[in-house]
Amino acid sequence: MKKFIISFILLLICSCQSSESENNIAIVIHGGAGTILKENMTPELEAAYIGKLEEAVMTGYEILKAGGSSQSAVKETIIIMENSPLFNAGVGAALTNKETASLDASFMEGKNLNAGAIAGSKYIKNPINAAISVMEDSPHVLLSSDGADEFAIKMGLDTVPNSYFITERRLNSVRKAKKDDMVSFEDSFINDSKYGTVGCVAIDKMGNIASGTSTGGTTNKKWGRIGDVPIIGAGTYANNDCCGISTTGWGEHFIRNVVAYDIAAQIIYDNKSIKEASVKSLDKVMETGGDGGVIGLDNKGNISMEFNTAGMYRASVDINGKVTIKIYSD
Amino acid sequence: MKKFIISFILLLICSCQSSESENNIAIVIHGGAGTILKENMTPELEAAYIGKLEEAVMTGYEILKAGGSSQSAVKETIIIMENSPLFNAGVGAALTNKETASLDASFMEGKNLNAGAIAGSKYIKNPINAAISVMEDSPHVLLSSDGADEFAIKMGLDTVPNSYFITERRLNSVRKAKKDDMVSFEDSFINDSKYGTVGCVAIDKMGNIASGTSTGGTTNKKWGRIGDVPIIGAGTYANNDCCGISTTGWGEHFIRNVVAYDIAAQIIYDNKSIKEASVKSLDKVMETGGDGGVIGLDNKGNISMEFNTAGMYRASVDINGKVTIKIYSD
Repeated sequence: MKKFIISFILLLICSCQSSESENNIAIVIHGGAGTILKENMTPELEAAYIGKLEEAVMTGYEILKAGGSSQSAVKETIIIMENSPLFNAGVGAALTNKETASLDASFMEGKNLNAGAIAGSKYIKNPINAAISVMEDSPHVLLSSDGADEFAIKMGLDTVPNSYFITERRLNSVRKAKKDDMVSFEDSFINDSKYGTVGCVAIDKMGNIASGTSTGGTTNKKWGRIGDVPIIGAGTYANNDCCGISTTGWGEHFIRNVVAYDIAAQIIYDNKSIKEASVKSLDKVMETGGDGGVIGLDNKGNISMEFNTAGMYRASVDINGKVTIKIYSD
Repeated sequence: MKKFIISFILLLICSCQSSESENNIAIVIHGGAGTILKENMTPELEAAYIGKLEEAVMTGYEILKAGGSSQSAVKETIIIMENSPLFNAGVGAALTNKETASLDASFMEGKNLNAGAIAGSKYIKNPINAAISVMEDSPHVLLSSDGADEFAIKMGLDTVPNSYFITERRLNSVRKAKKDDMVSFEDSFINDSKYGTVGCVAIDKMGNIASGTSTGGTTNKKWGRIGDVPIIGAGTYANNDCCGISTTGWGEHFIRNVVAYDIAAQIIYDNKSIKEASVKSLDKVMETGGDGGVIGLDNKGNISMEFNTAGMYRASVDINGKVTIKIYSD
């Protein structure tokens, strides 16, 4: 009888471990990287950021825990951040030189390398939904400008007037940037203290990785500027063979260094860990004069949240269920 | 005296070799890949393609030989192809669903990873000039749509009415595609027999690599579709540490597989030759269901021209001055 009980306990332990290793669910999010310093933050605003990051990451995690797909987890998590005026995506997006919101988003699935993205949308309420719809309902990967809005309307996605996205804080910010422009327009957008984005990477119980990123781009952007967010390989990448990545920062440098895919390539071709690869890619961004951050997870659920700015809004739930929510450098 | 003569001859040989290794100039171009079959080609049209490919590649090569920069060689070579109605770029570009030309181009410099691109321009006579201007005259990498045209006008680049780009051949092609749409719009653009682009990669006497690509995109494109051409890392990449790449083919698959940078990454992280890396990246494109071609050269001037379509308009001059001009599979 004693033997039987011991065997039973051992069996229980084994099946728990096995179930754990088959269900390495994990999720990681960012809400932008930049000059985020504690001395510039009120306790109320800090609490608001922490609260929203927690709400977003836990929403995705609960979906994964219930057996939902990584696509669903990434989508619902990003929608929460797009709907919050705290982040530079959806409501509260940074404004263009014409004082309008112009929204970019992208999404990629690791199981089949399917991807979709939009750039320069003015009316799509939740750009991440449009990115997924481009992937699923069109033969294309990237739709832009009026065409992206036309497509979203045709697909029956929620649209809103452009004023829906505009907050007083962002209006003040772009007006200040435009004023500074008269002296030095070329660098004004760099000085925006939160040229961030929102992003999410998740791995579900099936081992499928998905990544998504959404942004209003840089304050005072002109000429239909497209940053790294809707660029697969720069702002977003997912591949079950290695990892999922979402980036935030000075987009031009993330494009030139093909950051999201450079991290994946180091894992695939150079056997690097996701943390080592993320650090090296951010070093390359710094070498060309840029900065920012990257979040990601590999196909074992190992999480990485790296940045070379003062801070990055970020949160994660790892494969052991450990929740992390941070704003500043460690 | 005999010893002196031998030493002198040896010195001559050494300096010749040294001068050769310092001057490994080379250039490679493509004019699109697709279902290019000899039985569909008239001798006159074939001669026209061969002639224009030769004119383009030799123009760039002469610039390199005279000590000009790879930037200059790539620019002037691509302008010749943009100005020819034979290729899907500039005059003779494939037309959108609205029967207009919508032009994309990108450019990258290997010495500093600077890059510039435009997407969806309607009025810029030579899109490659605009891509270079975005790189040199703006803090951005990618400008799109009306904004790209506004920027080009501000920079004083040549603009033309959209009708300048439209040829009868392309009008017929898009009208046929639109008619077929009624049955199956999703795949109509794939069947376009030359969904190509033009591209050029060169290495100059300083060892600097530059890459450029230009296209009208796919016939009957809608919703502001952006393909791989203006995407750094997908359609174009250059880095003196490894190689320069320009791609052509079914753009969506080149984006999803981050083809241009995937080739570079294999050279950097996996010690592959440019030919091996190009073949492997094209295999990945085929795995997701796409096809096309890539041209490139590494920092020793080794040239690669690979494709998995029936043919690819292509030409090169290698480090020994050997000229190659081809259309069909070997």
